[in-house]
Amino acid sequence: MTDPTPLDASVAYAHAHTDAFIEQYKQLLRIPSIGADPAYRDDVRRAAEWIVKEMKRIGIENARVLETAGQPAVYGDWLHAGEDAPTALLYAHYDVQPVDPLDLWVAPPFEPDIREGKLYARGAIDDKSGVFIHLKAFQSVMAATGSLPINVKFIFEGEEESGSPTMEPFIREQRDLLAADVAVISDGGSSDETPTMMASVRGIVSGEVHIKGSIRDLHSGSFGGVVHNPIHKVGEIIAALHDEDGRIQIPGFYNSVVPVSAAQQALIEEGEAHAIERAREETGLKTFWGVPGYSFLERATAQPTCDVNGVSGGYQGQGTKTVLPAEAGFKVSMRLVNNQDPRDIAEKFLTFIESFACETLRIEATVSSSSWPAETVISGPIAQAAIDAYTATWGREPRLERAGGSVPIVGMFQHVLNVPVVSLGLGNGSNGHSPNEYFDLAYFKPVVDTAIHFLFNLADSS
Amino acid sequence: MTDPTPLDASVAYAHAHTDAFIEQYKQLLRIPSIGADPAYRDDVRRAAEWIVKEMKRIGIENARVLETAGQPAVYGDWLHAGEDAPTALLYAHYDVQPVDPLDLWVAPPFEPDIREGKLYARGAIDDKSGVFIHLKAFQSVMAATGSLPINVKFIFEGEEESGSPTMEPFIREQRDLLAADVAVISDGGSSDETPTMMASVRGIVSGEVHIKGSIRDLHSGSFGGVVHNPIHKVGEIIAALHDEDGRIQIPGFYNSVVPVSAAQQALIEEGEAHAIERAREETGLKTFWGVPGYSFLERATAQPTCDVNGVSGGYQGQGTKTVLPAEAGFKVSMRLVNNQDPRDIAEKFLTFIESFACETLRIEATVSSSSWPAETVISGPIAQAAIDAYTATWGREPRLERAGGSVPIVGMFQHVLNVPVVSLGLGNGSNGHSPNEYFDLAYFKPVVDTAIHFLFNLADSS
Repeated sequence: MTDPTPLDASVAYAHAHTDAFIEQYKQLLRIPSIGADPAYRDDVRRAAEWIVKEMKRIGIENARVLETAGQPAVYGDWLHAGEDAPTALLYAHYDVQPVDPLDLWVAPPFEPDIREGKLYARGAIDDKSGVFIHLKAFQSVMAATGSLPINVKFIFEGEEESGSPTMEPFIREQRDLLAADVAVISDGGSSDETPTMMASVRGIVSGEVHIKGSIRDLHSGSFGGVVHNPIHKVGEIIAALHDEDGRIQIPGFYNSVVPVSAAQQALIEEGEAHAIERAREETGLKTFWGVPGYSFLERATAQPTCDVNGVSGGYQGQGTKTVLPAEAGFKVSMRLVNNQDPRDIAEKFLTFIESFACETLRIEATVSSSSWPAETVISGPIAQAAIDAYTATWGREPRLERAGGSVPIVGMFQHVLNVPVVSLGLGNGSNGHSPNEYFDLAYFKPVVDTAIHFLFNLADSS
Repeated sequence: MTDPTPLDASVAYAHAHTDAFIEQYKQLLRIPSIGADPAYRDDVRRAAEWIVKEMKRIGIENARVLETAGQPAVYGDWLHAGEDAPTALLYAHYDVQPVDPLDLWVAPPFEPDIREGKLYARGAIDDKSGVFIHLKAFQSVMAATGSLPINVKFIFEGEEESGSPTMEPFIREQRDLLAADVAVISDGGSSDETPTMMASVRGIVSGEVHIKGSIRDLHSGSFGGVVHNPIHKVGEIIAALHDEDGRIQIPGFYNSVVPVSAAQQALIEEGEAHAIERAREETGLKTFWGVPGYSFLERATAQPTCDVNGVSGGYQGQGTKTVLPAEAGFKVSMRLVNNQDPRDIAEKFLTFIESFACETLRIEATVSSSSWPAETVISGPIAQAAIDAYTATWGREPRLERAGGSVPIVGMFQHVLNVPVVSLGLGNGSNGHSPNEYFDLAYFKPVVDTAIHFLFNLADSS
């Protein structure tokens, strides 16, 4: 018999410790690190400190909390693979979604509970798994082989579920510390038997418009016809956002939109049937909507949007109230695609709103958050390192999926650190934003194995 | 010395009993007859029964509660003035507005409290005053002279503050009982030293639109661009209600609008400056709005409106939530002017909403309440009887005011009973729909006197 390879030895170590890993994972899951809720501020920090302590225990160096203007980030590294070996920046986030509605949870969200082979807890799949699995892969390789095949830097975020509002200046400030050859985004995972890799994300610009008229709510009998109704202006602006086919009418909105690459276009065509089937289940709709001339997945991932997320004004209770309200407003989010610049779109949005100015109402518009559209690498040695890692450990080639949503960190890494980004989700489960979030433990070993394989694959590819 | 005239004797009786009248008024004000709130159903009936008992005590005949499909009405009559004497139907309402926000009341709303000569209580001016003053005028004339100069029928409503939803079928059913030569509307009163008479009201049609898309709220990242957003359709419809000058775009909406009479037009011109001044105070606005080519009061009282009273959909809390909501909707009220028919306008509104039907959303529209536009008599012997009554007792000629709001009973009396309607508000006070409603007791005697004078003036005019 020959000695096992470093890869095999690492995987063997991980398998031998699976039960202990899962027990330890529960410790992290017990910390209610709800980043968006100020009431959990101390818990968020406690989670960050738990990670730092664990990093130090397993041999990660320079482990520490890094302050941001928002929630703390966690950093650590191991840089002894040599100058010729690549350096990977491994990213995940340890903050979790709020837990409402609490009464729909079978077990309390921060008391990890295993039922029928699934580990239920808030954060179990989104995204403490990304944090924990990377640590366990490092530990396994280090314990089995005494070193790592590549250089690694870990960066774990605490405000992803809040839209990463302070991460861009933080990354800019820590640009040298975070410098790498590739950034690896491990956020979420697959919800079926096929591993998935995120091939693209849309950017986002969020805005809010308030329209104010009289100093108080008025009687619509006495003042209807002589006082400009703010709700009417809200309707006017919302209606003007799109033409009848759904094309966005903000001047210049599409100016910098470019077609996706041939490789990304191929993903759109491959994914079409699956995406429509899934959308029918989730929406209950038979007929979808959108700008003519595009496929479902083009509309959902390769075309920009401008959706009003909320509208309010006047009386909303039961029955009637003849009020002519003093104010009304709406919230909007625009999803951006290559090569739209969120700063440019924000400006165009504000200019568009200004064009509705009139003497009889005051219109106030603000833009509150923004991120870049981005594509991850889906071919070449880095992407292949991930694809091969999944294929070897799950027994299936990963599905490369374009996403309509936004993961701000992807664009930040690309634009600020100027590195390629690859998606390496490390989990299998669901309900990351709903009650009864879970990680399917049948996939715990394959997922740790994927993280280990990836490190060796990346070393081999360089 | 000659004997006092019957009028003088009646007024003398009223003045001699003013303190007792006010004490007795407090009894009625203590009954919380909030017609719109089912929790006060028994109190509404208790108020009706209090009135019946008082009617019987002072010599009004056939006094009884009359059931409607909603809140009970109170009827009574005295028909012994002879066939040549006119018969007046005296109307007021004994239901009152809800009391929220309760914490802004200096004294509890149903514990009548006199402060600086003002009697504070919910209903003190709107409109238990109309009920009570008519009863005290009757009592004074009857006690002082042993008879009345005209025939009178009293009809007191219990659901005016709810929009009189069941009064039209009730009046139709009781058409013979309520037959009269004139209907006298005593609702509210003046809020300054000049008595006011309502010269017109607008009709009203209220509607509600609900728009539904997917079976649940969706993520706007995943589904923006492929699922039709119900809020966008709401905006589209609201925007389509008016052109850029504020003209209503519901097809045929203006078809039956006719110009007001020369006499009503004169009121518009006389009232313009005062109306604008008052509107500036109440709204805090310097610039008003409306369809070009009309004066302020024409827009407010002689032109129809279509105001959205409430709009809702999606996320309305602090910050952002990237939701593509499952539903959205709005409430609308249309104010009608001569000769618009509320049934015709309701139909045109529903047809207009139907024209927005599409494959990707379900649109549901309902019409919930309606009333006729109406003008009261402002010249001729009946109007003069009221004008002279005010002038003799307040020392000022009344201001004839066109109103933009709606008093459904006016159109019902005109269309169902086919009688002229005259406005005879019997009160001086304010805050009928706000905290700290009051009746200014400095005007208690003049107001009772007005009601007494009116009875004699009407007898003389016939």
